[in-house]
Amino acid sequence: MTRYALIISYDGTRFGGWQRQPNSLSVQEVLGEAVAPLCAPHPVRLEASGRTDSGVHAHGQVVHFDMDRALSPLQLRRALNGKLPPDIQVLHACVTPTDFHARKSVRVKEYRYTIWNAEVMPPCERLYAAHVRTPVNLAALRDAAGRFVGRHDFASFCANPHRKIANTTRTIFSLTVTQDGPRITLAVCGEGFLYKMVRSIAGFLIAVGTGKEEPSAVDELLAERQRTARVETAPACGLTLWHVEY
Amino acid sequence: MTRYALIISYDGTRFGGWQRQPNSLSVQEVLGEAVAPLCAPHPVRLEASGRTDSGVHAHGQVVHFDMDRALSPLQLRRALNGKLPPDIQVLHACVTPTDFHARKSVRVKEYRYTIWNAEVMPPCERLYAAHVRTPVNLAALRDAAGRFVGRHDFASFCANPHRKIANTTRTIFSLTVTQDGPRITLAVCGEGFLYKMVRSIAGFLIAVGTGKEEPSAVDELLAERQRTARVETAPACGLTLWHVEY
Repeated sequence: MTRYALIISYDGTRFGGWQRQPNSLSVQEVLGEAVAPLCAPHPVRLEASGRTDSGVHAHGQVVHFDMDRALSPLQLRRALNGKLPPDIQVLHACVTPTDFHARKSVRVKEYRYTIWNAEVMPPCERLYAAHVRTPVNLAALRDAAGRFVGRHDFASFCANPHRKIANTTRTIFSLTVTQDGPRITLAVCGEGFLYKMVRSIAGFLIAVGTGKEEPSAVDELLAERQRTARVETAPACGLTLWHVEY
Repeated sequence: MTRYALIISYDGTRFGGWQRQPNSLSVQEVLGEAVAPLCAPHPVRLEASGRTDSGVHAHGQVVHFDMDRALSPLQLRRALNGKLPPDIQVLHACVTPTDFHARKSVRVKEYRYTIWNAEVMPPCERLYAAHVRTPVNLAALRDAAGRFVGRHDFASFCANPHRKIANTTRTIFSLTVTQDGPRITLAVCGEGFLYKMVRSIAGFLIAVGTGKEEPSAVDELLAERQRTARVETAPACGLTLWHVEY
C-alpha cells in the first residue's frame, strides 16, 4: 500500500460541500468515483484536510488515500483529471509517508473570504464573491479583524448546534485585509476552524465595515461566548479554502 | 421620447449570444423583458454595439433604447438590476442625444481574449478563459500579434459563409499581449470586427504560441484572403467584449 496526497481545487457552486451525504452531490463522492477504479478491489477511503460547506470553493484542498497500484504522481494526476469534471481538478499529486494524514497532520489552514464592494455585482464575479453594496470603512474593518487574532473562545462565532463541540477555543494566527478596487479579501490563517467560523467572522466584519457594529463589539461578543442573531453568517460563495500547511 | 444608453455586463455561459433567436435564450431577450414594462405601451427596441456569439461574455456592452417615461439614470439602473438575473447586470445608465446610436456611433471596440496556460485548468477560471496546456512562447505570440495591426483584408480570419460580406477589410488599432502567471490576455482594439474574427485571430495566435505555426504565417494568410482549416476558432468562453468607445 502506498499513500498518495492530492492538492485539489473545486468550484463549490453545484456541490453540497466536501462531505458525502444522501441528498446532494458532494466533492467526496465525485472524486471517489474517479479514484475507485485505481484502488479496486479495495474500497476507496478519501480523507480531506477538513469539510467545506455547501457552495464553498477550494483553491488548495488536500486529500489522502492509500492504493496498491504504483502510479507516478504525474500519471495519477493525469488519470484523475481525465475523469473528473471541469469543476473539480487535481493540481498536484505526491507520494507521502504512510503516517501522513490530510486532517490530523494539518499545521495551518488558510481560508480567504472575498467581498465585492460596489453597488452593482459584475456577473463574472458573482460566483466567487459576496456582494456588499454599502461602502465599507476599511479602517474599521481592519480594527475589528485584528481583534480576532490570537487564542479565543469562538463560541459566538460558529454554528454549534446542541453544543456538540465542548471546546470552542481556537487560535487565529493572522487575519489580513487587502483591497484591490471593489474587491476586499480577508485572509484568515489558523490551526483549525469550527463549523461556519470563517463565515461568521466574515459576516461580523461586514457588519463592522458597513457601520452596523463597532470594532470593539468583537471583544464584547468573544467574551459572551454565545452565538446570537447579532452575528450573521456571510454567503458561502465568498469563501475559499485557500491553502493547507503540514 | 428620451434615448437612454446602458453599459451592461454579462456572463455569456448560459446564453446563445446577444441576438434574439428561436432555439436558445439570448441576452437581448432577457434584457428586453426587463425593459419592456418601462416602455409600455410601446414595444421595446434594443440596439447593441454589436452581437456577441453564444458563450461570449461582456464586461462593457453598450445598448440604447427610447422610452417615454422619465426616469433618472440611477432609477433606471436600479429598476433594471432588480429584475435582471445575476448573470446580466447594468453597470451604468445615462441619457444620450437622440442621434446617439449604440452600433452606428461606435468609434473603437475592445475585445479581450484570455488564455490559461498551464497543464491543469483551475476550476474557478474555467468559465472565463481558454485552456492551453502546451507552454506558450510569448515572444513568438507577440511577433505574430503585431502583424495583425493595421488595415488588412481579414477574409482568412473570419467566418463568412457564402461570402455574404463583400468587404472583409478592417482596421486593427492595437493588439497587445500581457502575461500574469499562467494568464495570458490578448487585448484587441479596432473600429469593428467581422463574424468570429477575434476568436480566429486568437486561435491562430495560440497556434503560433505553441509552435504549430510561425509568426510570418500571419502575413501569408492575410495575403491569401481565404479561410482554411489552418485557422482554428478559439473557444467562446475565453472572449469578452471589454469596452466600446464613442
